[in-house]
Amino acid sequence: MAALPPLEFGTVAIVGVGLIGGSLGTALRQRKKATVLGVGRDTARLEEARRRGIIDRATIRLSAAAGDADLLVFCTPVDRIVEGVREAAAHARPGTLITDAGSVKGALCAPLTTGLPAGVEFLGSHPMAGSEKQGFEHADPDLFVNRLCLITPAAHTTVAARARLKQFWEAVGMRTLEMSPAEHDVAVAEASHLPHLVAATLASTLRPEHRPVAATGFRDTTRVASGDPGLWTAILLANADAVLESLERQTALAARFRDALRARDETTLHQLLSDACQARESV
Amino acid sequence: MAALPPLEFGTVAIVGVGLIGGSLGTALRQRKKATVLGVGRDTARLEEARRRGIIDRATIRLSAAAGDADLLVFCTPVDRIVEGVREAAAHARPGTLITDAGSVKGALCAPLTTGLPAGVEFLGSHPMAGSEKQGFEHADPDLFVNRLCLITPAAHTTVAARARLKQFWEAVGMRTLEMSPAEHDVAVAEASHLPHLVAATLASTLRPEHRPVAATGFRDTTRVASGDPGLWTAILLANADAVLESLERQTALAARFRDALRARDETTLHQLLSDACQARESV
Repeated sequence: MAALPPLEFGTVAIVGVGLIGGSLGTALRQRKKATVLGVGRDTARLEEARRRGIIDRATIRLSAAAGDADLLVFCTPVDRIVEGVREAAAHARPGTLITDAGSVKGALCAPLTTGLPAGVEFLGSHPMAGSEKQGFEHADPDLFVNRLCLITPAAHTTVAARARLKQFWEAVGMRTLEMSPAEHDVAVAEASHLPHLVAATLASTLRPEHRPVAATGFRDTTRVASGDPGLWTAILLANADAVLESLERQTALAARFRDALRARDETTLHQLLSDACQARESV
Repeated sequence: MAALPPLEFGTVAIVGVGLIGGSLGTALRQRKKATVLGVGRDTARLEEARRRGIIDRATIRLSAAAGDADLLVFCTPVDRIVEGVREAAAHARPGTLITDAGSVKGALCAPLTTGLPAGVEFLGSHPMAGSEKQGFEHADPDLFVNRLCLITPAAHTTVAARARLKQFWEAVGMRTLEMSPAEHDVAVAEASHLPHLVAATLASTLRPEHRPVAATGFRDTTRVASGDPGLWTAILLANADAVLESLERQTALAARFRDALRARDETTLHQLLSDACQARESV
């Protein structure tokens, strides 16, 4: 067997081997970029992931994994990331970088700006890739290709950590963009969290007896509402302020449509639809 | 050259040769189901459609086309259908069936229940197929395949017209479902018109500086907002009452999400998202 090319990221511990973690594991292994250590809570599931070639090794002991890893990526639900990072950091070697794949950043990055051991750094990531599917059974080594990863440095983040994390996500095919955690949360509230909430209201507004009439327009508009309710409850709560602010603006806009429809005001309705069409085309 | 198989629908006049009309023309011609007469307002555009094989013959004279056709299909914007049908009916031969492809039915079918010449019948259709694209340049002979066509008979509709129209849409690959015009409008308000309105509000809520963050979730959720503002203004106005009713229910649901988020009420939020997820999965 030919020797492997040199490892670029050493040992990467993936904490939470679900769709995202599993896809990341496969992406790193297929590209021969790192030895992948899978960390989870269920030995049998981890063993199955190893058998499928998604990870190289498995453990349910986060502290042991933290001591072994050069980089840890938390792919757990957002409400479990802060405590996990704290625990891992306490056992990590100096020089270890810790990141995550969570969809909110302020609620994670703020508490992690202090209290980590010297030489261990946390820098938040949000790889904008995913699917309504769950579990490593749907892992896709190309899930991240050409997608955007938002990286959210704080004032104290080192240049080295920023460079290393950028290089890491690029190694699995992503483009990266840096912004502050607060900026991230406002942007993602508008672009993802609010659309999820609103898609959920549309899915529930369609009465069962009218389901046969739902065509591609409905399916596209409400697709995200199939996402896991538990994960999304945690996401919306962790970004509640920004989501509420964007919901307020969306509701005000819906009221303008309502008023124009009630008044049969063709001019205003046409203007509202034109503005939206132009905005959508600009994305 | 081999003889064509027998024509099943004789001469079909398509009034309005855009994306839908053009796709219908190509679908009928490729399947050798009818001689297709294209009716429009722009001679040069019609000639181009003929040259592309979308229609067999072209005319800008609706009255002449009506006298020639066995079946007329109005694919014009919804606010031009009623007057067009009246004009065509005045010149049609007894036995002629007239239908349309409009996205609303009550506002079209109600005024057309009376006043047509004896022997000329109007029966509404809503082929649920389309795209954000416009113009016969995007015509697709398979646009209708496996899609649903809603047919909306009134009390006076003959059994013969219902059978003939069902057969017609099935000939281009559609499934058909009958319902009253009023039922149609309520169902389609929930499944299509409200999602369009709400997608438009989401597209406009995303501020330009946050556009780089829009990923597939945003794109899917707002895709329909790219639809032609003029066409959609007419559709929403023609179905205003049903759209307003469904918007009211959607707004009430959004307010429940808002209240749960403000109160950081995890249980309620989880329930709302679970209900929506289940509803979406049932479609």
